[in-house]
Amino acid sequence: MRFTKVVVVGIDETKLEPAYWQRIESLADVLQRVDVVGEKLVVDADCLLVGFETVVDAVTIEKMPNLKYIGVLGTAYDRVDVAAAKDRGVIVTNLPGYSTEAVAEWVFGVLLEHLRNLSRAKQEAAKGNYGPAGFSGSEIMGKVFGVVGLGRIGTRVVEIALGFNADVRYWSRTRKNEMETRGVKYEELDELVRQADFLSLHVTGTSDTENLLNRERIMGMKTGAIIVNTVSMRTIDVDALEERLKRGDVTLIRMHSRSLTGEQWKRLSRYQNMVVYPAFTNVTNEANQAREEMFVRNVERFLAGKPENVIN
Amino acid sequence: MRFTKVVVVGIDETKLEPAYWQRIESLADVLQRVDVVGEKLVVDADCLLVGFETVVDAVTIEKMPNLKYIGVLGTAYDRVDVAAAKDRGVIVTNLPGYSTEAVAEWVFGVLLEHLRNLSRAKQEAAKGNYGPAGFSGSEIMGKVFGVVGLGRIGTRVVEIALGFNADVRYWSRTRKNEMETRGVKYEELDELVRQADFLSLHVTGTSDTENLLNRERIMGMKTGAIIVNTVSMRTIDVDALEERLKRGDVTLIRMHSRSLTGEQWKRLSRYQNMVVYPAFTNVTNEANQAREEMFVRNVERFLAGKPENVIN
Repeated sequence: MRFTKVVVVGIDETKLEPAYWQRIESLADVLQRVDVVGEKLVVDADCLLVGFETVVDAVTIEKMPNLKYIGVLGTAYDRVDVAAAKDRGVIVTNLPGYSTEAVAEWVFGVLLEHLRNLSRAKQEAAKGNYGPAGFSGSEIMGKVFGVVGLGRIGTRVVEIALGFNADVRYWSRTRKNEMETRGVKYEELDELVRQADFLSLHVTGTSDTENLLNRERIMGMKTGAIIVNTVSMRTIDVDALEERLKRGDVTLIRMHSRSLTGEQWKRLSRYQNMVVYPAFTNVTNEANQAREEMFVRNVERFLAGKPENVIN
Repeated sequence: MRFTKVVVVGIDETKLEPAYWQRIESLADVLQRVDVVGEKLVVDADCLLVGFETVVDAVTIEKMPNLKYIGVLGTAYDRVDVAAAKDRGVIVTNLPGYSTEAVAEWVFGVLLEHLRNLSRAKQEAAKGNYGPAGFSGSEIMGKVFGVVGLGRIGTRVVEIALGFNADVRYWSRTRKNEMETRGVKYEELDELVRQADFLSLHVTGTSDTENLLNRERIMGMKTGAIIVNTVSMRTIDVDALEERLKRGDVTLIRMHSRSLTGEQWKRLSRYQNMVVYPAFTNVTNEANQAREEMFVRNVERFLAGKPENVIN
């Protein structure tokens, strides 16, 4: 089985290696790129391939009578109305887990960078300043390492933190017995946030997790605590966070994202304890390749009648 | 029991917190600081406290008839003639293990900094460049992580690498069964160096380990391999290393040290694949405190007739 018309929206041609585009082309009579869904030409598509920031709402789905499949190039799929798709019998797939390791390793990279002043140290050495004067640091071992949310990424963060001999504790919607037998202590969220020297957030971005680190929790954090947040900033009460950043007694390490407005980023970035990185948390060669492979394979499996990574 | 005269050489007053100096002062009738051992005033000392770079040779020891104890502020003690001390009944102590975790965690910090371009990324974000363009990265998971030498630090590096799900392999003078049952594979050194994606050196600096990574081994390393070396540069054939750095297909990450001459540092630092940090590998609050505490405690235990951390 093959598609009559594959339409690609919101996916830059460079996002996939040519070999992957060729595999997609071989599965369709026509492959067409458009900038915005809803254009006239899209109406007859039976396959829609979209970036994770492309909005595909119920009205759009309604307009496409032949649509059978929506493939999202990403793990998040909150821009697609998956319920509306389901009602119309349209399968939606995403890419779970391709960047698990990329994100989990990044958490430890940026944490150690911060704890050991690695960027500044490299700059000093480049200037010929080789002495240890002016450097201090602290260790992961023995610290209370709190992980919020034990999905794929959170679980890997826990396992790596165990390797560092941290005092690893977690909160998650469901208890994880296997982790607890490995010495990871479950705590109620209030308690976990209060105890943590390091707090790593790995909940999914839903309405349930909005404002999860609310004012009370943020204000109750230990002096010197470090939050590494690789999920939506909507999980954090930004005003309360700003108060702690202003005092300088809590640090947030974070990649840039659209979950804050430009104005909010500007406001927070004034504080020395706000460490901002570009949006490259999940960028590794391994993750890139896994993402491309999984994206194309999802299409192939659907056509083979054995769809994988179906959301709805 | 207390000392009549404690002489301190090569230890800057700021190297110990005042509370630790007070504990030392309380153990002696006289505490005296000198710049060089062998000065006249030192002759009657019964306790010598020295920095790890202070030379205490047989002639010096011979000149000090009352000497009973030499305390070295460091793990390395190759500047002290411990055999001569032993002949004269002088106990020498050092500080083993105080910075095990500081060094082991540093290895992963600098490796991840390099793999994920963290310094450059921070700089880009500071300039307002928030996009992922221009970044790539690679992961620790699944890579051949070779550890040379399984003493305290090497063992911790292995354990942390296991947390990252690396393919951890080792060479050490003696086989470590416990590690092997945890899935760490023993390899002959030639083989280990050839296979490694990452190679972390943790041998002690003795004549046995000089030129351990000899020309043949360095030239046989994989394209793209990364060496993290926190021990003496005398373990590496610098000319062969330079050839690989010039080709740009092997990377060395390293803190500055006196195991290379200034000219050698300058020569190697020209290459982009030579990543140099200041000499701050073992600088953490935890290690600093453990070092000071152990140093003073060594003196106290000696006086209590129960010496600890005795080398000779």
